[in-house]
Amino acid sequence: MSSFSWPIRIYYENTDAGGVVYHAEYLKFFERGRSEWLRHLGFEHSQLKSEHGIIFVVRELTIKYLQPARFDELLQVVTSAAELGRSRIVFEQKLQRGDEVLTSATVEVVCVDAATLKPTAIFPAMKQRFLENN
Amino acid sequence: MSSFSWPIRIYYENTDAGGVVYHAEYLKFFERGRSEWLRHLGFEHSQLKSEHGIIFVVRELTIKYLQPARFDELLQVVTSAAELGRSRIVFEQKLQRGDEVLTSATVEVVCVDAATLKPTAIFPAMKQRFLENN
Amino acid sequence: MSSFSWPIRIYYENTDAGGVVYHAEYLKFFERGRSEWLRHLGFEHSQLKSEHGIIFVVRELTIKYLQPARFDELLQVVTSAAELGRSRIVFEQKLQRGDEVLTSATVEVVCVDAATLKPTAIFPAMKQRFLENN
Amino acid sequence: MSSFSWPIRIYYENTDAGGVVYHAEYLKFFERGRSEWLRHLGFEHSQLKSEHGIIFVVRELTIKYLQPARFDELLQVVTSAAELGRSRIVFEQKLQRGDEVLTSATVEVVCVDAATLKPTAIFPAMKQRFLENN
Repeated sequence: MSSFSWPIRIYYENTDAGGVVYHAEYLKFFERGRSEWLRHLGFEHSQLKSEHGIIFVVRELTIKYLQPARFDELLQVVTSAAELGRSRIVFEQKLQRGDEVLTSATVEVVCVDAATLKPTAIFPAMKQRFLENN
Repeated sequence: MSSFSWPIRIYYENTDAGGVVYHAEYLKFFERGRSEWLRHLGFEHSQLKSEHGIIFVVRELTIKYLQPARFDELLQVVTSAAELGRSRIVFEQKLQRGDEVLTSATVEVVCVDAATLKPTAIFPAMKQRFLENN
Repeated sequence: MSSFSWPIRIYYENTDAGGVVYHAEYLKFFERGRSEWLRHLGFEHSQLKSEHGIIFVVRELTIKYLQPARFDELLQVVTSAAELGRSRIVFEQKLQRGDEVLTSATVEVVCVDAATLKPTAIFPAMKQRFLENN
Repeated sequence: MSSFSWPIRIYYENTDAGGVVYHAEYLKFFERGRSEWLRHLGFEHSQLKSEHGIIFVVRELTIKYLQPARFDELLQVVTSAAELGRSRIVFEQKLQRGDEVLTSATVEVVCVDAATLKPTAIFPAMKQRFLENN
């Protein structure tokens, strides 16, 4: 299973009065990682919605906070698709400072119809692209 | 001109590593103030969009940061409509700790068609309600 | 085990282009619920830090997205402390529209020394207060 | 006066239920632009705080919303220092799609002592670096 790395810079906007990154901000970093993974494979959310009528939504997420990320740091979010179902993808993601894992997450995402929000199959060409990449 | 007051509690989500409220968060507080002012007058954004096909967008905003707001504080956002035009409203807003003004803003908001995003007149019953209240 | 309820109003700041609440925002609602639960029991984060040198940090969090929360809605976040350890608390939290659960979370929080960020025991008077309330 | 350009990608986190970028998010983009301008000149906020005991805070900000930024777009934030005083800097910043200006801002920033939050002079080597670059 291949993994995809994307840089994340920590700005004031991401920190809180505890002096480190606010716990909800990591979810944004992981979503940037998934969006850039998708873009890397040739797909964009906005085009998937307008041309295919689908959006991806998060159904369940577990996140472990191991070490705090700090202001001004340049980190990497590492993303891999651990499971590929008919309409669901389970991602394993890590926020890393070099080889050190600061935060890890398992994120279950579901492909839904943009109008009804009901689960719908990932279309064959996209699924094929995901499988080639894994 | 009457003014409308709404409580704002400061949580971790609003602060940054400087130990006080992050400068962009004040715009959220002011928007909550305008939304609650509107609700107080009998209107809600979601109903204005679905029933009247209009939304309010910010066109210009000036904000002065006088004193920092701090974690855990309970503050008030004070809102008044300083100017009422055909499609625009200019709000004067303050974030206060008792009588002390921490941040003040002038916010120009425009009523636009939800589909085209072009300016459109504030409908008569809403304008009437605004004028009665001022 | 008693539970504590706190109102959450959905504003523009909480939504995204999907038209519903952005998935990371729910973590803020749950943190507001925990902070207000703590305040209800007589403690505030800022006073715990300045007087006792402790802060609470999230170590692990699992969140299930069942139904989307929508713009302008008034919801409740329901919080209960499911486990109380020497330095850790496990919260069960739900975001509800009346009796309907939109999002549920299990959040493990650890009491740490504000200077070293190492786990430290919840002090006896606070622990006693937590136990009385459960 | 030279200007400094930095890329901004629009993610879900930046949008709201209106379908475009939420108005407070632009302040984050402009702050990233100022932080990267500073880093480009050889300074970082965290090092300025730890080594020099100074931080930069926003004192006043005017922002004009001309055209909405959209989901998935890759934009540029263009930053230049229009005025350099003893302790203050006035920035002119624009968020651009190619040559089209979507949002423009004038941001007054003040160098303050990190402990007292009182204005303090920008130190000579930093001021020199700013002047060379303009």
